[in-house]
Amino acid sequence: MIVVMQKGATESQIVHVTETLKELGYTVHPDRGEHQTILGVVGDTRSLDARSMEVLDGVAEVLRVTEPYKMVSRSFKPSDTVIDIKGIQIGGPEVIVMAGPCSIENESQIHTIAAFVKKAGAKILRGGAFKPRTSPYSFQGLGVEGLKIMKDAADANGLVSISEIMDIAQIGQMEPYIDILQVGARNMQNFALLKELGKTRKPVVLKRGLSATIEELLMSAEYILSGGNAQVIFCERGIRTFETYTRNTMDISAIPVVKKRSHLPIIADPSHGIGLRDKVIPMARAAVAAGTDGLMIEVHNEPDKALSDGAQSLFPEQFTQLMSELRAIARAIGRTIE
Amino acid sequence: MIVVMQKGATESQIVHVTETLKELGYTVHPDRGEHQTILGVVGDTRSLDARSMEVLDGVAEVLRVTEPYKMVSRSFKPSDTVIDIKGIQIGGPEVIVMAGPCSIENESQIHTIAAFVKKAGAKILRGGAFKPRTSPYSFQGLGVEGLKIMKDAADANGLVSISEIMDIAQIGQMEPYIDILQVGARNMQNFALLKELGKTRKPVVLKRGLSATIEELLMSAEYILSGGNAQVIFCERGIRTFETYTRNTMDISAIPVVKKRSHLPIIADPSHGIGLRDKVIPMARAAVAAGTDGLMIEVHNEPDKALSDGAQSLFPEQFTQLMSELRAIARAIGRTIE
Amino acid sequence: MIVVMQKGATESQIVHVTETLKELGYTVHPDRGEHQTILGVVGDTRSLDARSMEVLDGVAEVLRVTEPYKMVSRSFKPSDTVIDIKGIQIGGPEVIVMAGPCSIENESQIHTIAAFVKKAGAKILRGGAFKPRTSPYSFQGLGVEGLKIMKDAADANGLVSISEIMDIAQIGQMEPYIDILQVGARNMQNFALLKELGKTRKPVVLKRGLSATIEELLMSAEYILSGGNAQVIFCERGIRTFETYTRNTMDISAIPVVKKRSHLPIIADPSHGIGLRDKVIPMARAAVAAGTDGLMIEVHNEPDKALSDGAQSLFPEQFTQLMSELRAIARAIGRTIE
Amino acid sequence: MIVVMQKGATESQIVHVTETLKELGYTVHPDRGEHQTILGVVGDTRSLDARSMEVLDGVAEVLRVTEPYKMVSRSFKPSDTVIDIKGIQIGGPEVIVMAGPCSIENESQIHTIAAFVKKAGAKILRGGAFKPRTSPYSFQGLGVEGLKIMKDAADANGLVSISEIMDIAQIGQMEPYIDILQVGARNMQNFALLKELGKTRKPVVLKRGLSATIEELLMSAEYILSGGNAQVIFCERGIRTFETYTRNTMDISAIPVVKKRSHLPIIADPSHGIGLRDKVIPMARAAVAAGTDGLMIEVHNEPDKALSDGAQSLFPEQFTQLMSELRAIARAIGRTIE
Repeated sequence: MIVVMQKGATESQIVHVTETLKELGYTVHPDRGEHQTILGVVGDTRSLDARSMEVLDGVAEVLRVTEPYKMVSRSFKPSDTVIDIKGIQIGGPEVIVMAGPCSIENESQIHTIAAFVKKAGAKILRGGAFKPRTSPYSFQGLGVEGLKIMKDAADANGLVSISEIMDIAQIGQMEPYIDILQVGARNMQNFALLKELGKTRKPVVLKRGLSATIEELLMSAEYILSGGNAQVIFCERGIRTFETYTRNTMDISAIPVVKKRSHLPIIADPSHGIGLRDKVIPMARAAVAAGTDGLMIEVHNEPDKALSDGAQSLFPEQFTQLMSELRAIARAIGRTIE
Repeated sequence: MIVVMQKGATESQIVHVTETLKELGYTVHPDRGEHQTILGVVGDTRSLDARSMEVLDGVAEVLRVTEPYKMVSRSFKPSDTVIDIKGIQIGGPEVIVMAGPCSIENESQIHTIAAFVKKAGAKILRGGAFKPRTSPYSFQGLGVEGLKIMKDAADANGLVSISEIMDIAQIGQMEPYIDILQVGARNMQNFALLKELGKTRKPVVLKRGLSATIEELLMSAEYILSGGNAQVIFCERGIRTFETYTRNTMDISAIPVVKKRSHLPIIADPSHGIGLRDKVIPMARAAVAAGTDGLMIEVHNEPDKALSDGAQSLFPEQFTQLMSELRAIARAIGRTIE
Repeated sequence: MIVVMQKGATESQIVHVTETLKELGYTVHPDRGEHQTILGVVGDTRSLDARSMEVLDGVAEVLRVTEPYKMVSRSFKPSDTVIDIKGIQIGGPEVIVMAGPCSIENESQIHTIAAFVKKAGAKILRGGAFKPRTSPYSFQGLGVEGLKIMKDAADANGLVSISEIMDIAQIGQMEPYIDILQVGARNMQNFALLKELGKTRKPVVLKRGLSATIEELLMSAEYILSGGNAQVIFCERGIRTFETYTRNTMDISAIPVVKKRSHLPIIADPSHGIGLRDKVIPMARAAVAAGTDGLMIEVHNEPDKALSDGAQSLFPEQFTQLMSELRAIARAIGRTIE
Repeated sequence: MIVVMQKGATESQIVHVTETLKELGYTVHPDRGEHQTILGVVGDTRSLDARSMEVLDGVAEVLRVTEPYKMVSRSFKPSDTVIDIKGIQIGGPEVIVMAGPCSIENESQIHTIAAFVKKAGAKILRGGAFKPRTSPYSFQGLGVEGLKIMKDAADANGLVSISEIMDIAQIGQMEPYIDILQVGARNMQNFALLKELGKTRKPVVLKRGLSATIEELLMSAEYILSGGNAQVIFCERGIRTFETYTRNTMDISAIPVVKKRSHLPIIADPSHGIGLRDKVIPMARAAVAAGTDGLMIEVHNEPDKALSDGAQSLFPEQFTQLMSELRAIARAIGRTIE
């Protein structure tokens, strides 16, 4: 951390800031320039609130030199982390596709879709049993019953499964049935939940909050890693901006940025990222071109009758066509899709 | 809901959209204009995803006519709701001030501050025992022990108390000690928690999420009201924008907007809204001038040594001075502060 | 336009709103529902400010049914517009690459870069002579002298040229030397300039403002088209969001959205969109995968010594490598790059 | 400027960065810590693009220590600047109110309104003659003819006048009639215009762009001051956020922030800041409570028939009532309104 003093800062102000830092256990290296004094602060400043220095008299600005996160950082572990789930590797050369309905609705629906996406090349089956809905009057999901029928459908088709967790109490309910636990955008900073997920041994897909900075996304993962679970996969799913023609603005640039800052893999969810079926396809292609490690795509056998998010679910034939385009794009940049 | 068909929409597209809506149980009133057909949809469309119509062939746009919320709406209950907590009324002519430290740190700290804010005119004591922190390496609060010493301090000074709840499991822990449960910005869409709060009989302060629209804030309250708890108080605490000179951008206009849309009271939290002590004061004044029903202000006996958010906590003497200015402003617009 | 009356609106309020609309020359179709009256407004409401109805007593909401733009709309002209500039076609199956330095610095620089980008496959030479800089103390460009040496470099290499215009007075200065006039993000709503560009016969690249909605971008083009110049090419170059790890957030989804709403072509500028060299490459690939009609990329022979924006300029060898990846991606989605 | 090297940066990378900085004329003070080397850069780095260092190998981050602006800064001139316009002082203890219609529509309209606002306590008459409109099909203003009738109305009522300038060519047209030139939000970074305004001797009200940071606002003023015109008044008029219930989000906190960073005065425009008549009043009150030096408020004798922005214009009797509330609030914080 660097504390920049104001141009007219007095000697006693400089001394007061220096002493305050020393009391907190830091070593201070002053650099007394002609116009301005700058204090270099040495020690672990990750848990020091920069603003507590900023409000001291004579301080112009406080700058962080070190990243606030640690175990998620690429400087902590320079090589890519590859997460292996029953033989499927996320973070390696293959781009892994997760597909399925927004919500698990009934047995026949999930079996039909599972068989279909498997055939088209997906490796992981997605489907929601506990649904976070903006309105209390919307369909809230089948709950544990949904998890059970999803497990059957995944097993029957040789697929691995992923589903969203909304509350600590659901961890025990999900573990027997689901391979990957997904934390939704609205819970990205539900720290109580993140702490508990640090104690599980299931891989976690951590979705970026609608207005979360990339730094905050990395910090939330730090909660899981520091709790003992190193299997975190980030997911870009669109951020909130002023634009109203799209539901969210999918931040494709988060893919190369996260991969530079962290060793952990990142996938993209164009279905939520853009929110309308006809634009899911170009955004899925863009994510692969930008280097995503995986995709999560909503597919439904009858999107017009889906109980949730039908508007962003692909028709089966659209998904097959998309998979073939994605394969060609992956090849163009030296990666593969099976 | 109104479905606007494209200019060149075919007869069969219009029929398909109409039939789809009828199958969902709605009545459709078509208005066949010279250039364009418009379909009026009658029935409760609150739980219908507009996008599921938007993706149908021939549809140009889908417009909502009714508000998606119900029980929180002023059209549901035209008169102001006044919430009474042990004789203190929020939503009436008096502007209620809640003050205290960010975190409860120890007995002497909370007692000192409680006595002080009471004397200066605050009615409610705030203080955090479970702290949501961006970093897992930051101070996480004293937990239940903190709640106990806070209750003592509140009781000793004739104050009502408010503290933040982060997880369902904490409801039972907090109820014996705390009068008002506060849902933080990061949990505004933690729907599992909101549902449980609908079952309690404690008033809830619901803080607006950093990137939550006012409509989403109202929808989240709908979870609590529809669960059976009508004592919800909104709280504006700053939203996330592109500006970097302030921590958040406090949306003062949310105060008159919420009061027009809903019958429930709204308070403002300038300490989090702006994040730096010297600007808390003008923002607190602005909130009162704009018509807030209450304020939540962080005050600390030794802000420089606070374990969290010291930079936004007022010194005791600043708080006294502020209270006197607020009284004059409240009077200028026909309200009171004791 | 549709005016939704409040649930409790009185008969006299409904009559007043109806009369106000009739005085303005509109026909009103009332739909008196059980709970609520809805007024359909027929006539050209593009220049009617919706808010002037919204403030009338008894009005709940005003909804626009028609797009506010006209000549840029795909419903006005359903087929794609292809703009031909000396035989180069923008908006057709080929993805056109524009490349060159941020600023024209001197004769040898622009000739070296022109020869290089031509060889690598670019069709259009970009370079700034009038530079909009946030700081008055930064390099402001070579002016007309720069345009002259740029024309020589373009001619010598069989390239078409594009450069930014900042003021009406520069139109006459640029016309003899430059083939495409570019309106920068900061001038997207400089309506005085747009009106004058409507009178020229040069194609115009209109960049999206940092915080402009897609609707506003289309409206700004309407100024040029309604003035008589139909050769407008949109350009997505990044929008401003809360994220701070990237300079801007490149809104890749604007590409499919604009192509659906308008018949005019759209290109992407990943150099400004992301602002750092190492991420320009994945974002350029993503734009092609999403369906852009062209790309504008900053390339410099010595980026480290560039007088402006060196950090986002590619090294020559990076550009060659990128062009080869882009060709493969274009092919994967059925388009071409020469 | 401070260049933070990566943890594993090599000696040759450190030397390369150091040499690059020296070639640019800077002195470099290296601080070789245990884990990381930090380079302090001494010299005027205001015109150095931080990103050009950021892309060099081995660099982790580049931090600015000095503000990029100079003459507008409070460290350049610590005392408040008070701008005197024919005896009216902006930036002193009195809060100055500017009021009038959005557009000048005809002689009788502007005379009626001028007489009215004068009587209610306004000191400055506002009114637009050149109107920036999103749509080319909306009313574009009366032009020079409007300026003439506005001057008559101002003179007849002992008011000073302010009107918006949109293009360099209008400077000469406005100077004979108008006392204060206003730069609208869309032209805040029209640098060609700002440079010319630096050469005039008229005070300039510079409105913050819809998505401009406060830093960019200050930088734009630097163009005017460095050109020789020191009479700049800032104006907060709402920023663009994700919220859709209000037209813009008025950033009240910009008032204390600008006053801390700069010696120049700042006023607020709640009419544009919020965009709907009924919320203009609480936002005007909030701005005064937060310390604004002035207000710009749209008032119309017949808002329902206004040719532009009628929805945000106050009725005369609302304005009178507001002025009386504002006087009481100004008094509460130690300021005055006549």
